[in-house]
Amino acid sequence: MNLFGGIEAGGTKFVCGFGTGPGDLTIARYPTTTPDETLDRVIGFLKNAELAAVGIGSFGPLDLHRDSPTFGRITTTPKPGWANCELAGRVQSALGVPVGFDTDVNAAALGEARWGAAQAMSDLLYLTVGTGIGGGAIVGGRLLHGLVHPEMGHIRIPHDMVRDPYPGMCPFHGDCLEGLASGPAMMRRWGKPPERLPADHPAWALEAHYLAAAVTNLSLTLSPRRIILGGGVMEQAHLFPLIRTEFARMLNGYVRHPSIEERLDAYIVAPGLAGRSGLLGALALAELALAEQAAR
Amino acid sequence: MNLFGGIEAGGTKFVCGFGTGPGDLTIARYPTTTPDETLDRVIGFLKNAELAAVGIGSFGPLDLHRDSPTFGRITTTPKPGWANCELAGRVQSALGVPVGFDTDVNAAALGEARWGAAQAMSDLLYLTVGTGIGGGAIVGGRLLHGLVHPEMGHIRIPHDMVRDPYPGMCPFHGDCLEGLASGPAMMRRWGKPPERLPADHPAWALEAHYLAAAVTNLSLTLSPRRIILGGGVMEQAHLFPLIRTEFARMLNGYVRHPSIEERLDAYIVAPGLAGRSGLLGALALAELALAEQAAR
Repeated sequence: MNLFGGIEAGGTKFVCGFGTGPGDLTIARYPTTTPDETLDRVIGFLKNAELAAVGIGSFGPLDLHRDSPTFGRITTTPKPGWANCELAGRVQSALGVPVGFDTDVNAAALGEARWGAAQAMSDLLYLTVGTGIGGGAIVGGRLLHGLVHPEMGHIRIPHDMVRDPYPGMCPFHGDCLEGLASGPAMMRRWGKPPERLPADHPAWALEAHYLAAAVTNLSLTLSPRRIILGGGVMEQAHLFPLIRTEFARMLNGYVRHPSIEERLDAYIVAPGLAGRSGLLGALALAELALAEQAAR
Repeated sequence: MNLFGGIEAGGTKFVCGFGTGPGDLTIARYPTTTPDETLDRVIGFLKNAELAAVGIGSFGPLDLHRDSPTFGRITTTPKPGWANCELAGRVQSALGVPVGFDTDVNAAALGEARWGAAQAMSDLLYLTVGTGIGGGAIVGGRLLHGLVHPEMGHIRIPHDMVRDPYPGMCPFHGDCLEGLASGPAMMRRWGKPPERLPADHPAWALEAHYLAAAVTNLSLTLSPRRIILGGGVMEQAHLFPLIRTEFARMLNGYVRHPSIEERLDAYIVAPGLAGRSGLLGALALAELALAEQAAR
């Protein structure tokens, strides 16, 4: 049985692991300091195992085009020291195995399709709602890329200035989805972090309203078979029924399908892998990279 | 050289043609009356040629799942007589050739990728803005489906009630994209059909604003390599520069790619096939159906 390595590269920490799947992971966490220091630690840890391939799910933006001279890099991040940082090539040359490389949210979508809440589903959306908002997707059985990669956290949704005069906090867009509904937006609007707002606080109806608008738009655009909502804000499980109700109200019977008309509890769901969607997704990226190399 | 048939099935007319591509099409048009009458005429016309396959791009909603008992049908349309109407199976048994079947907008996207403004592009979006608004897409080289099929015309976008108190006219959603920005919405808001509003009328800045919001959301979700805007409203060519400018303003430098930063004139474009994207797309669906049958 092949052993795979996974790297979940985040702006505050790198989570790495190796194993064959959710049952036998060995995990290590390193704070995100400089690229050299962080990657040395990650690579040192992964050298403890005889790996068949490694997968990386990273914060972005990233260059995902294999034919590009800057493939495998983080590109324009404002994070000091990390712009233009090479990730995939560096791990590949240090470990000498195939390396899969994608966004953290595409990795999470893949992890959920491989072992989590959307197993073997050909079309699914994973949206994370935390410090930022981001989305990954599998479309027709394959990870969604394109010109660059999706940045679903920055879509525009209706902002009811009467009900919610908070102007939004996205430095690029003000009141885009992330500007209105990320954890820090909730914190600034209400003066408390989301986990300290009681379940009956009006913050949650408003949050569900914005997230339902996002889910509506993403569902109408991608037509996923399941929508997984993860990230720190979604750990407040009471948000799920609020979002489902608001989504049904917004869609108003327009899309006719049993999954949407009768089984919303199975259409909009929590991750099956709890906090490990990203790391296990990186492991699944490693599997894919090995399979792709074998197919070449 | 194979001869293919194409059917663009619309709510007011069916446009059919046969040929090998844009250069040698023989075309016929029939008003959409009853399914029996309309399909008899269409099938009669297509029997004039020795066809290798037929493609159908249809108004919807449709059942596109080959393993479904209702595959190949229009499903829940409010159009009298057409709900649950079988299209693909009927054409297939009458003509005895492989039949491709997809939405009118997916067909148009495919036509533009095959012969039009996005040739050989693996990731593209086609949005039609006319009596209704609808979108089709190619993602990773394949037509976008999923649980059902996209219904991008009904996404929610910010509606500035101060600048535009018109409540929107979508019977399901009021002020969704289609409710605010379709041709009939322009007509009801301004009291004149779009083609009779002069280019300096404030209607156009507002229309560009709504369409730019839609293009922003769809671009951030699907990351297409090119966005083609077709349909009756987009025949007002002065809309294109307005939409490009507003899109760049909304995105505000967030997505870094030369196609978006430097070549917006080639990123948001008019159809290359003018009014024939749908019919030629149906022809391309026929090609695909033949290739898929050969691969089985």
